[in-house]
Amino acid sequence: MLEALLRPKSIAIIGASRTPGKVGHAVLANLIQGGFAGKLIPVNPTTDEIRGRTCYHNLAAAETPIDLGIVVVPPKAVVEAISSCAHAGAKAIILITAGFKEVGEAGAKLEEEVARLCRSHGIRLLGPNCLGLINTENHMNASFATQMPAPGGISVVSQSGALCTAILDWSAGRGVGLAKLVSIGNKADLNEVDLLSALAEDDQTKVIACYLESITAGDQFIKVAESVTSIKPVVVLKAGTTAAGGKAASSHTGSLAGADIAYGAAFRRAGVIRAENFESLFDIATALSMQPLPKGRRVAIITNAGGPGIMAADAVENVGLEVKPLAESTSTALKQRLPAAASVGNPIDVLGDADPERYATALDAALSDETVEAVVVILTPQAMSHPEATAEAIVGSLRDDKPVLASFMGGLNVLPAREELAASNLPDYPSPERAVAALHAMYEYSLWRRRPPRVVTRFPVNRRRVERIIARHLRSGRREIGEVDAKDVLRAYDFTVPEGRIARSAEEAVAVADTVGYPVAMKIVSPDIVHKSDYGGVRLSLSTPNEVRDAYDLMMLRIGRRAPEAELVGVYVEEMCRPGREVILGMHRDPQFGPMLMFGLGGIFVEVMKDVSFYLAPITRDEALRMLQSTRSYALLRGARGEEAVDLEALAGGLQRISQLVTDFPQILEMDINPFIVGATGAPPVVADARMSLSLDEESQ
Amino acid sequence: MLEALLRPKSIAIIGASRTPGKVGHAVLANLIQGGFAGKLIPVNPTTDEIRGRTCYHNLAAAETPIDLGIVVVPPKAVVEAISSCAHAGAKAIILITAGFKEVGEAGAKLEEEVARLCRSHGIRLLGPNCLGLINTENHMNASFATQMPAPGGISVVSQSGALCTAILDWSAGRGVGLAKLVSIGNKADLNEVDLLSALAEDDQTKVIACYLESITAGDQFIKVAESVTSIKPVVVLKAGTTAAGGKAASSHTGSLAGADIAYGAAFRRAGVIRAENFESLFDIATALSMQPLPKGRRVAIITNAGGPGIMAADAVENVGLEVKPLAESTSTALKQRLPAAASVGNPIDVLGDADPERYATALDAALSDETVEAVVVILTPQAMSHPEATAEAIVGSLRDDKPVLASFMGGLNVLPAREELAASNLPDYPSPERAVAALHAMYEYSLWRRRPPRVVTRFPVNRRRVERIIARHLRSGRREIGEVDAKDVLRAYDFTVPEGRIARSAEEAVAVADTVGYPVAMKIVSPDIVHKSDYGGVRLSLSTPNEVRDAYDLMMLRIGRRAPEAELVGVYVEEMCRPGREVILGMHRDPQFGPMLMFGLGGIFVEVMKDVSFYLAPITRDEALRMLQSTRSYALLRGARGEEAVDLEALAGGLQRISQLVTDFPQILEMDINPFIVGATGAPPVVADARMSLSLDEESQ
Repeated sequence: MLEALLRPKSIAIIGASRTPGKVGHAVLANLIQGGFAGKLIPVNPTTDEIRGRTCYHNLAAAETPIDLGIVVVPPKAVVEAISSCAHAGAKAIILITAGFKEVGEAGAKLEEEVARLCRSHGIRLLGPNCLGLINTENHMNASFATQMPAPGGISVVSQSGALCTAILDWSAGRGVGLAKLVSIGNKADLNEVDLLSALAEDDQTKVIACYLESITAGDQFIKVAESVTSIKPVVVLKAGTTAAGGKAASSHTGSLAGADIAYGAAFRRAGVIRAENFESLFDIATALSMQPLPKGRRVAIITNAGGPGIMAADAVENVGLEVKPLAESTSTALKQRLPAAASVGNPIDVLGDADPERYATALDAALSDETVEAVVVILTPQAMSHPEATAEAIVGSLRDDKPVLASFMGGLNVLPAREELAASNLPDYPSPERAVAALHAMYEYSLWRRRPPRVVTRFPVNRRRVERIIARHLRSGRREIGEVDAKDVLRAYDFTVPEGRIARSAEEAVAVADTVGYPVAMKIVSPDIVHKSDYGGVRLSLSTPNEVRDAYDLMMLRIGRRAPEAELVGVYVEEMCRPGREVILGMHRDPQFGPMLMFGLGGIFVEVMKDVSFYLAPITRDEALRMLQSTRSYALLRGARGEEAVDLEALAGGLQRISQLVTDFPQILEMDINPFIVGATGAPPVVADARMSLSLDEESQ
Repeated sequence: MLEALLRPKSIAIIGASRTPGKVGHAVLANLIQGGFAGKLIPVNPTTDEIRGRTCYHNLAAAETPIDLGIVVVPPKAVVEAISSCAHAGAKAIILITAGFKEVGEAGAKLEEEVARLCRSHGIRLLGPNCLGLINTENHMNASFATQMPAPGGISVVSQSGALCTAILDWSAGRGVGLAKLVSIGNKADLNEVDLLSALAEDDQTKVIACYLESITAGDQFIKVAESVTSIKPVVVLKAGTTAAGGKAASSHTGSLAGADIAYGAAFRRAGVIRAENFESLFDIATALSMQPLPKGRRVAIITNAGGPGIMAADAVENVGLEVKPLAESTSTALKQRLPAAASVGNPIDVLGDADPERYATALDAALSDETVEAVVVILTPQAMSHPEATAEAIVGSLRDDKPVLASFMGGLNVLPAREELAASNLPDYPSPERAVAALHAMYEYSLWRRRPPRVVTRFPVNRRRVERIIARHLRSGRREIGEVDAKDVLRAYDFTVPEGRIARSAEEAVAVADTVGYPVAMKIVSPDIVHKSDYGGVRLSLSTPNEVRDAYDLMMLRIGRRAPEAELVGVYVEEMCRPGREVILGMHRDPQFGPMLMFGLGGIFVEVMKDVSFYLAPITRDEALRMLQSTRSYALLRGARGEEAVDLEALAGGLQRISQLVTDFPQILEMDINPFIVGATGAPPVVADARMSLSLDEESQ
């Protein structure tokens, strides 16, 4: 994929310049100095020669077909430059020039025109407003960054061009190589999704590291990322959170779900590893590009110093990995081969005077131990230490079935060793904690790779009935689906809803109550009243015909006074729910990533403790159960404090049915079932109250 | 303080060796190479000369008084070596030799003997099993670490010698200087507390960075650290957590409070900054040693790249600092002096082609802005960047009233700039996030420095009454103080306790109920039953004489069957508490740091959500209020969801009274008031149930 962009045979540089310091000069010079072996065609109307190469006044004059055009001319000349590339048969353009969407409306218009032009010629466009692209495989530095990285397994996709220069400088400083580096700029055409797809197929790329400020198409991103992460790891640093996600939300779910939570849910759904900051992005990417994935959580620590060994063990336990004692046979063998004072537990302390061989002995033993699934090797540069020779010895013991990560602590004395480690594909970190954090990300990714296939259950439902209810609301322009209709929708998706009916008079209310049986609940029905209890529109546990009659009359009287404009349809009379644990199931449609399901325990747990979990629909049974488990209050559901456990499967089933409902009906913008009352296993949970709101937007109908 | 150790005029090296590679050689060579100007007296029974210096066969032969003896002889020769130093008038010993407490019982005995010997001569002892000590002020490298750091403001105290070598290597690599480096080894005499005291008085030391695995005397540490942190910052990395703190705890408070929580509480109490890991220890120490404290939380960000600016802004908000727009006058002025495309908001984007002057302009403007209290300067090495010249320009704009932290991102190209920054006391970090984390620690420390004086209120109480109750229990060897007596203790400390009395027959129970008024609660009284409700020993809301009579007889009958061995004293009959919010107040005496108070909301909040806060007694009113505020459920106390707010002052008062009680009576090992029922302001909270346990230990009585 993107052959013309990543592996062109011939490149035209439109706007090449003979003046050092100019971007048009830098791009050509970098291509030459990088060692690109294909054809280079510099174009500049006023120059005949640059760096000993013929420069053409226009591309037509070169009379050569090209694969890729790199455009560095001023904005007003861009359209003509791209047209000339199209005529020369270009299949890809790198538009480095800035001054488009990022400078305002006129720029945005020009950017659209350029994108349209490329599309009409079947040309893929990178940029505008980008640094360019580097491919170490074919020695192509098609950017204005002067540093050409060494080849390596990490490919970088960055929405910030400036960050690319910092990454290149980091790569040079640490001796960690790159496969591709792509600056995607304003993403007029090619975006993170296209690059993920292309890099998934690139053999040089072992891991994809992305810096993103926005994601162009959320649903596509998830689909593509999920399939890419099934082949190779994707690590993303997402910078900048906006309030867009939580905007204009009237539901509980909506008000609790911000954009940052949505990104988190999307990454979780797609198996994308989320980096917390710039350093961890490359800490994790480096480990993944160099070492095999761990098969489990048991970590052996080898150290020549007690303190750092403790620091590493603390870190391992803090992230949820394990430091277990080694197998007895391993300890016995090590006892014979290490000095008496050495510790053969875990951490293995090879002592302050450890020579390279002692490290190799310990590492061999740890890697051969069946109870060890990953190793962290720590060295502090003591008087008797030989960091460089130790690095060589460790590298000699590496195997391809268990990951080894190193932390050579210090600065000056360990520098040469660090280079040796990097050159030999052994990731090295300035502190044990960072090594452990990277290992933890590898472990989490290994779980993702070993995940069971996602099977989304489809329940038999009455879709037609929901279609009719929604159509009725849309016809009359009503955004809100009130309790009565929302319960009808949920009944159609096989939720258990208390029996009930709308009564339009006190006598009718009594008749309904007589039918459904006492005690009953009564709730006002009005298209104009969303929060019923704020208006005194909810009465519970009414036990006699008289209570029902009084409640009806009082409700109509008082609400009529409080909200004189509201249309009062009547009162909904229904059987009381059996008591049980109250939970909230909800959905909020994120503008980027679509339907986000929410789960939380009712009342204070949601409102005060914010103890909720989110997952993107459609959801599997396992994911639904994990949603329950990832709330802090999960212990209560399982039956803490002597209370009975609730029916977890039934709860998970409820989440799955909502998932199906909101997937079937994109018109549903948000919904809450609050409370959903769940009891012990066997008794179906009951929808005590529910509401939904619809999008009046054409697009989602 | 510790003059002979830190600033000796003459040093004897007992066990000096002429063999390079031996520790006895390294110590002498390091002293010479480091440039120590005082007298050096090498001692070795079989050597006449080392490195051109006379070596004495024994210290007496040198006929010179010494201040400091450095001992590197084998363990069995240590006692004699120290005796000879004592005779020569030494006031301090650095015992580098290993093979003491760390190798087992025999070593521990020898260590005690050595410590006793030193004490008897009034000699302070550093070690054994340590790397030694470095003081850059007098060029004294009294250690076997070969690297001598440059002078700087950070003093290091480390319980791990090996970590010291990593720190020295880091210092050399980053160009960050040190004042003192002290390896405290086994702490046979001098420990972290002694060093904190000494370094507090050391003018070269601007900040003290400690790596600790244990703290020798918790109460002393808190006392000394609190006074040290009032003069200069102390940053501690505490490695290795043990289960000691939570051991054998039967109270709620005890089971929730682990050793790690106790360390956290101790550090908070003493104003010690806790570092999460090795890197952050030095990230924070470096910032504090180089820059003034911020006066507030408003941060300006200057960057030549959008992406890293966003990353910095995200980080600032995540730690609770603020990125606010600059003052209008600042923006206006910057608009005139920066290119049109530059962003003069916050972050200030000086653009990718920013030269050093543009950085200086932006920094001057930010530092002159009254709404700015700290500045983070970011540079990515782009084609037009001049990192080194930019570093110089930034340094030229520094002022001593507002901190500036830099993040020059990348690797190779920014190295010379990093050296320039370090040499000019401008802390620099590889990523904006780390700069911001360090700034956050500075801000938190600035709050500590500006804290109001701690005033612990002493309430008038009836101490004699508590003395009598405790004495009675101790006389009869009873560890547990049951509900009735515990309530008596609390009454003496002016807690409100429901009126009640023990009844020894059903009729007496009715009589008590008639006196205190219905409804009443009834609870079994037995020295053998701690968890009353487990035995059916609690009945609530009994409204009539008949209910009371039945309850008494049934309780005695059934508990008599269930726990036939238990002595049943009778039944406690008391007035029912008014309903209110149930909270838990507790205390658990940490073996290291003493009485730790706990606060949490009752029931699931403590048991399931673990939503509790801790603070060490004695506690002030402010600290008690902060304990309430630092639970997640605080919103409920303040009156979330339309419920009435509870009397926060009364709650804080309860914590203060417990604080006073457990400070007055160290015999009280742990206690819970559970539940403590608190209502709206005005009504005093009530002790519904309580229990305590005593130490039978001689020492605490």
